[in-house]
Amino acid sequence: MPNWTALVTVLAILFYFYTGYGVTAARRKYGVRAPATTGNPDFERVFRVQANTLEWMPVFLPLLWLFAYYISDIGAAVLGLVWIGGRVLYMMSYSEAADKRGPGFGIQAAVCGVLLVGALIGIVSGLVHSA
Amino acid sequence: MPNWTALVTVLAILFYFYTGYGVTAARRKYGVRAPATTGNPDFERVFRVQANTLEWMPVFLPLLWLFAYYISDIGAAVLGLVWIGGRVLYMMSYSEAADKRGPGFGIQAAVCGVLLVGALIGIVSGLVHSA
Amino acid sequence: MPNWTALVTVLAILFYFYTGYGVTAARRKYGVRAPATTGNPDFERVFRVQANTLEWMPVFLPLLWLFAYYISDIGAAVLGLVWIGGRVLYMMSYSEAADKRGPGFGIQAAVCGVLLVGALIGIVSGLVHSA
Repeated sequence: MPNWTALVTVLAILFYFYTGYGVTAARRKYGVRAPATTGNPDFERVFRVQANTLEWMPVFLPLLWLFAYYISDIGAAVLGLVWIGGRVLYMMSYSEAADKRGPGFGIQAAVCGVLLVGALIGIVSGLVHSA
Repeated sequence: MPNWTALVTVLAILFYFYTGYGVTAARRKYGVRAPATTGNPDFERVFRVQANTLEWMPVFLPLLWLFAYYISDIGAAVLGLVWIGGRVLYMMSYSEAADKRGPGFGIQAAVCGVLLVGALIGIVSGLVHSA
Repeated sequence: MPNWTALVTVLAILFYFYTGYGVTAARRKYGVRAPATTGNPDFERVFRVQANTLEWMPVFLPLLWLFAYYISDIGAAVLGLVWIGGRVLYMMSYSEAADKRGPGFGIQAAVCGVLLVGALIGIVSGLVHSA
């Protein structure tokens, strides 16, 4: 098993869980009771931080593991840490103002791009060698 | 392959699919036509049951499989069944009233906590032994 | 590793990413600024294409890989390509009108049904043989 990638996976899940906790806290702070998810822009930005992180989980996690298997466990783990860092920046800046969410978003998207290119190279190489 | 964990994964996906079917049924029952997802609190609670289950899938499934690989296939499967049970309770109670959703939510969250702690112990143990 | 399934996984993630890009483009086109996700039916349909694709990722990807491991790598890859085709049809037709989204949705759902049945047969067979 790629142990380092497994460890970073757990860290990414913990971070993602934390964005969900932020929604619960924001429901209390801004008085937006479940099941509503709209009505207060400050709440909606915190809600969208979680929603966007959720939206990227099926991009990030499969690519992370494909990269780990085809290229490198430690390489995937390091890239995964950078992804989490970009996500933390995105969370902090988007919670302040929607216009500030660009840089953190760009970092995590770039990491996914690197993971995807690496995975593709590994997959094609695997197909060629097994042909 | 951890066969029991694979079986519980399919069951969890079937349950998750059922929460999506609930949204389709609630669209008809409460007259909320796609693409709208708001406007009727009864519909919104059913919608949030599916949305919240979706939100937890990237927490539950990776932790379930990490637990299965590092600790125990049958242990992961049993915990997965408890998770599904908590999710069923959450679905039934949240569909009735938002205030009733606590216990089912707590059960499935506690299962994820156990899976996470088990996975972490297994991962760290794996890193130590391969060092 | 099931290389063909890995390749189709990357393609599915690229397609899913494209539906997210559609949301960004629709925000500009219809003047729906983040964090809002409602207020314009044309935007909402594009938003729901991405949201629905996201909702099906935890159904599609695990079933695809279970099918690949238990039944056939190439079989899973071919079914995965049909799933992507159904999703593309769904995206194009739902973006036009909500009432047109049925056929594409049905194709991708049918693929998931085949993947699920195949995975279940493989899992049960695996449990019987290891008993």
